[in-house]
Amino acid sequence: MSASREHETSDDAKGHSGLEDVGRRTRAAALQLSALPTSARNEAIEAIAAALEEAAPAILAANLADREAAEADGISSSLYSRLKLDETKLRGEIAGVRDVGRLPDPVGARQIHRELDEGLVLERLAVPVGVLGVIFEARPDAVIQISSLAVKSGNAVILKGGREAVRSCQAIVAAVRRGLEGTAVSPEAIQLLTTREETVELLKLDRWVDLIIPRGSNSFVRFVQDNTRIPVLGHADGICHLYVDAAADIATAVPIAVDSKVQYPAACNAIETLLVHRDAAVAFLPAAGTALQEAGVTVRADEEAHAILIAGGLDDVEPATVDDWSTEYSDLILAVHVVESLDAAIGHINTYGSRHTEAIVTEDQAAADTFLARVDSAGVFHNCSTRFSDGFRYGFGAEVGISTQKLPPRGPVGLEGLVTYKYVVRGSGQIVATYSGDGARSFTHREL
Amino acid sequence: MSASREHETSDDAKGHSGLEDVGRRTRAAALQLSALPTSARNEAIEAIAAALEEAAPAILAANLADREAAEADGISSSLYSRLKLDETKLRGEIAGVRDVGRLPDPVGARQIHRELDEGLVLERLAVPVGVLGVIFEARPDAVIQISSLAVKSGNAVILKGGREAVRSCQAIVAAVRRGLEGTAVSPEAIQLLTTREETVELLKLDRWVDLIIPRGSNSFVRFVQDNTRIPVLGHADGICHLYVDAAADIATAVPIAVDSKVQYPAACNAIETLLVHRDAAVAFLPAAGTALQEAGVTVRADEEAHAILIAGGLDDVEPATVDDWSTEYSDLILAVHVVESLDAAIGHINTYGSRHTEAIVTEDQAAADTFLARVDSAGVFHNCSTRFSDGFRYGFGAEVGISTQKLPPRGPVGLEGLVTYKYVVRGSGQIVATYSGDGARSFTHREL
Repeated sequence: MSASREHETSDDAKGHSGLEDVGRRTRAAALQLSALPTSARNEAIEAIAAALEEAAPAILAANLADREAAEADGISSSLYSRLKLDETKLRGEIAGVRDVGRLPDPVGARQIHRELDEGLVLERLAVPVGVLGVIFEARPDAVIQISSLAVKSGNAVILKGGREAVRSCQAIVAAVRRGLEGTAVSPEAIQLLTTREETVELLKLDRWVDLIIPRGSNSFVRFVQDNTRIPVLGHADGICHLYVDAAADIATAVPIAVDSKVQYPAACNAIETLLVHRDAAVAFLPAAGTALQEAGVTVRADEEAHAILIAGGLDDVEPATVDDWSTEYSDLILAVHVVESLDAAIGHINTYGSRHTEAIVTEDQAAADTFLARVDSAGVFHNCSTRFSDGFRYGFGAEVGISTQKLPPRGPVGLEGLVTYKYVVRGSGQIVATYSGDGARSFTHREL
Repeated sequence: MSASREHETSDDAKGHSGLEDVGRRTRAAALQLSALPTSARNEAIEAIAAALEEAAPAILAANLADREAAEADGISSSLYSRLKLDETKLRGEIAGVRDVGRLPDPVGARQIHRELDEGLVLERLAVPVGVLGVIFEARPDAVIQISSLAVKSGNAVILKGGREAVRSCQAIVAAVRRGLEGTAVSPEAIQLLTTREETVELLKLDRWVDLIIPRGSNSFVRFVQDNTRIPVLGHADGICHLYVDAAADIATAVPIAVDSKVQYPAACNAIETLLVHRDAAVAFLPAAGTALQEAGVTVRADEEAHAILIAGGLDDVEPATVDDWSTEYSDLILAVHVVESLDAAIGHINTYGSRHTEAIVTEDQAAADTFLARVDSAGVFHNCSTRFSDGFRYGFGAEVGISTQKLPPRGPVGLEGLVTYKYVVRGSGQIVATYSGDGARSFTHREL
């Protein structure tokens, strides 16, 4: 009993001081990394790529061991495919590291340069956020992407991968850290946690970690948001809408509806509800319903849409209830709702949507402008698929996450989501008393 | 008993639906306000100014009644002076409203304009945040400032003032809403809450409120941060430092030390700890200590600083303990600590500071650059007072708050803290399938 108590105590102490210590070391590495020039960070990224090439056999072997263990545990085929890292995929990921090296440097940009008074100059400079905490599920390739994005943006990172991918993640992080050894970036800038208990501890490290990026299911993201004081970059829900207006061109609307649902139904930017103006419903719905069903989509229609679809010759149309308006299927299911006006469509979206991405199909420019102005979402689109809502398609070169929070960064977030700014003021002895009270000196506030 | 239960139930239901309803109405007003052009918002601001002028006698009478009640309750003189709104001050506040009208419009700026492909164009536009929840203490003038800043930036606002100022706040909000009646902005865009219970309810309105701005004591801000899921703009602590380097010019350093502490000791950008390099301590500390004591400052010195101050002829120097390094006095008290190096100063600041504002005094450019790069604070200054860390002094024209969070908005926040952005994509029937798989079409990603 006494031995067991001692054991618990020592484990506890180790567990606690262990992660505090990881936090402290990562913060120290971050402070050093944040001051490095672009060239030093890009050299470190090339060293990571080279080290991953060298370690490829070990990484592939570790991934095979992970997959064998996962198969023995009977994991789902979708999880298995996310876990799998073969030679082709690894080569692609290493090429991706070098692509990150070629991206423009997000750090150091001067956003404000202003004379406050003679010899007193204000600058606002883009600086790294500091220490990132990134929690992801099975995909071991995420370790490679996140490590290179972190180094590029001058940030240290504490990674927590899925249990299924532990051997792969360890082999990759070992290679990344070995690669950093000969560079200006400390290997301590990249840390790996492996247990679920450490996830909970990581969320408490608000003293050392500046930003949490959770990648996973809606419920996981919500768990993270509810259990940390650290800012979280991510989105819990993606309930996106396509609204087919009275003045829609049907030949434009049908392929956009199909693409927005079918092109990748598990994506957060796929639509869950199709809104149709009453005046377009008879012309649009049978054509759209047929195309959607041919693509394997189950249609759930409200009463009015249901009647039009059946009259248009469709079978197997399910009834929709009000619960469908708030459901993210992430699957080949689509709710259909007839609305009586553009205003009703906007009202429905602002009530049931998750402020992610919504599109209107219409030839009426005024209707489009009203929709784009009054829909309260990160992405508002006219005559194109909601699936364009993506950092790579927007031309950001990388996507760190998609945020449905209203404050910036909002929507798809590229490397700029990993930088913040600081204000630098250089003076020559100025004090505020000079600028206050009677005879106060004025500021010049002149842009430089 | 049965009657009492009924009473409780009905009160409960009323309280809940009451604030939910305020939230819903404010959100509706915000959506309409967010789509108004610059001119309509500026006209509304002029209408507010005119209405306040017309209502001046009623506002001054209400403030007098608040002050009489507060005096009867025996409030502190500092609270009384914040509560007081006389004719001169009111006239100044109304002039301030018109100044806000003349500020550049923070809404509508196009931050990104990019062709993704022929006929497929991405824009990122600055848009209002939506509904603000602003909670402040006694100062009734805050209602005037916040209302005008909200309308300028296209946001609706739910205000909660201090109990002591309830009559003043009601008179001001009544005038503001009356002013809005003849304009394109709905009076529902400006709401006033008056009870403490409503503060707690407001923090739960994450469905309707997009940003909470608490103005008050550190403990109040921390209470707000810990009790809401709504993003909070503000800072709990302001533990700022001045570091006097080995290569400091003493004639520069002494007035900066005095100004940084004395010019407004209750401000968050006033220093709490003065760090002095050992090599500068003998020359600097007696001169600084004398000047600080003459200005009424109590000095708390570590052992080494204490000995130097006493040897320099000072009396009444208190001893400092490690607790002083983490204390925000907000008063005429200053901790003094001798450090052995620039690195030790930076380490002290990054350990005990609150990431607000820190300054170095030195003639050594390399030391200054190291300090500015490695100190992890929103404001890093060289050879000037920490008190310059302020939205008006930075030239923002207004200050919504100061944030010590690392993510943007960081530091003093002007009107840009009240806007976010949305992505607008205009297409001509494009779908993502065209850009995927074999024979995928490429994006052009051409800046327009």
